[in-house]
Amino acid sequence: MKSSVRIVEVGPRDGLQNEKTTVATADKIALIDRLSATGLRSIEATSFVSPKWVPQLADAAEVYAGIRKAPGVRYPVLVPNEQGYERARAVGVEEIAVFTAASEAFNRRNINAGIDESLQRFAPVLERARADGVAVRGYVSTVLGCPYQGDVPVADVVRVARALHAMGCYEVSLGDTIGVGTPGKARAMLRAVAQEVPMAALAVHFHDTYGQALANILACLEEGVAVVDASVSGAGGCPYAQGASGNVATEDVVYMLRGLGVETGIDLDALAETGRWLAARLGRETGSKAGKALAAA
Amino acid sequence: MKSSVRIVEVGPRDGLQNEKTTVATADKIALIDRLSATGLRSIEATSFVSPKWVPQLADAAEVYAGIRKAPGVRYPVLVPNEQGYERARAVGVEEIAVFTAASEAFNRRNINAGIDESLQRFAPVLERARADGVAVRGYVSTVLGCPYQGDVPVADVVRVARALHAMGCYEVSLGDTIGVGTPGKARAMLRAVAQEVPMAALAVHFHDTYGQALANILACLEEGVAVVDASVSGAGGCPYAQGASGNVATEDVVYMLRGLGVETGIDLDALAETGRWLAARLGRETGSKAGKALAAA
Repeated sequence: MKSSVRIVEVGPRDGLQNEKTTVATADKIALIDRLSATGLRSIEATSFVSPKWVPQLADAAEVYAGIRKAPGVRYPVLVPNEQGYERARAVGVEEIAVFTAASEAFNRRNINAGIDESLQRFAPVLERARADGVAVRGYVSTVLGCPYQGDVPVADVVRVARALHAMGCYEVSLGDTIGVGTPGKARAMLRAVAQEVPMAALAVHFHDTYGQALANILACLEEGVAVVDASVSGAGGCPYAQGASGNVATEDVVYMLRGLGVETGIDLDALAETGRWLAARLGRETGSKAGKALAAA
Repeated sequence: MKSSVRIVEVGPRDGLQNEKTTVATADKIALIDRLSATGLRSIEATSFVSPKWVPQLADAAEVYAGIRKAPGVRYPVLVPNEQGYERARAVGVEEIAVFTAASEAFNRRNINAGIDESLQRFAPVLERARADGVAVRGYVSTVLGCPYQGDVPVADVVRVARALHAMGCYEVSLGDTIGVGTPGKARAMLRAVAQEVPMAALAVHFHDTYGQALANILACLEEGVAVVDASVSGAGGCPYAQGASGNVATEDVVYMLRGLGVETGIDLDALAETGRWLAARLGRETGSKAGKALAAA
């Protein structure tokens, strides 16, 4: 296990994107500013996907322009295509994230293209990013299961991760989008990808749909991964299982890492307070068990 | 990791004991009968602790007398002293569980006795059980932390577990009562105990107060433990952290084990349905994430 781990906080993007309650622009900015003060080093701020698809994040430009950029903190934003790239760059974005699925069926259903074609569609964005000195993170979704095709061959995950890395992504995040994975499968998948992409360029991204996220993260930490995506207060949900849990809560991950003696640089109490603050804005209890317990203690 | 694991379902006792909503005797009986039909082999049915302390389980004798004893299923009950033992035996109980804490402060606060004295108090119960051919399970609580003294020395956990085993407990369940443990500490604690008590005679019992239970169980499975306590629908709570989560949900444990290829003999769908049924009786959503996701899928 590595002695330190970087958490990529995805609550303001992946979390809010899957929340039904509309969050005011000022609250999104306040959320990110609060997160910046916890010691997090990577905070995914928003998404420049078309507002038609993600109405919650229609204020991407305002949010990005409004946040205080803390020194040493990265603020990647999701970008689907050249148009999104241009909107992002217009407000000074310096790091982007692109995304595709490891499942043929998922890609076909969502963007009407197979895996290879979906990768080709990103090529111009990655070329421009390289020319502009913009760092790029890549997401591979459905790495342990797909709502349409069920099992996803590990070979497809490896192929997509290798392609994103070869195309210039400095980091590739492997996402169990529907949270069906268990630790043995998570470990085997990561091990297979790490044969082709250096472990130092890999991140893991687990959803807690079946309550397995933390166990899966533990298995991947044991394999040597050093970057973990998580969402404060467990913000987010699962569009494929109404009412189910979404992203793993950052607080629970940080609590585990602290107990394991793994450094994150994050102030857990400040993080948990921010998680409860966000949950209040969403009109519910925090989805982080550590967040709840720390409040009660 | 072992190829099969026995789950000890503690929902009807440890779960209900910490629930505020009173559950009707008929519903408790229905719960246990439903659980018996899922493939579970051990179901802790109730507690013969004084109704003064645990009003929810004041109907212990009626519940035990009312359940259908399925062939091959064990129905241990909690017994605090000789009086409880006699009440249990009067309705035909064939397996009991005794309990003590690994924390000096916890024992002093709860029973006004140190660890050694608390063990001595069980001696007559264990003697009678041996004479009567009654199997005895032993619980050690606060193995990874105590609400009064904080850290609990591993040496104290080892000493209490060894004593219970030596006094005749066929199995000793190591409980993280307040759910503060993390996987590295859980693993180290189990490893230390297993130096003195055979691993085959050990069980682990995690609460999910800080969201760590499944990761802790994974670490202990990797150490070779083959018995895991869990509570259907995550029934129960934490008396030391109001509003926090209680026992790990059996459904989530079984989902993980199934994914790991570890046999439990349990029908997950039937179990999850029972968890949702129980949650409805408690007037809330199931506390099992797998239970929620399976209902949504």
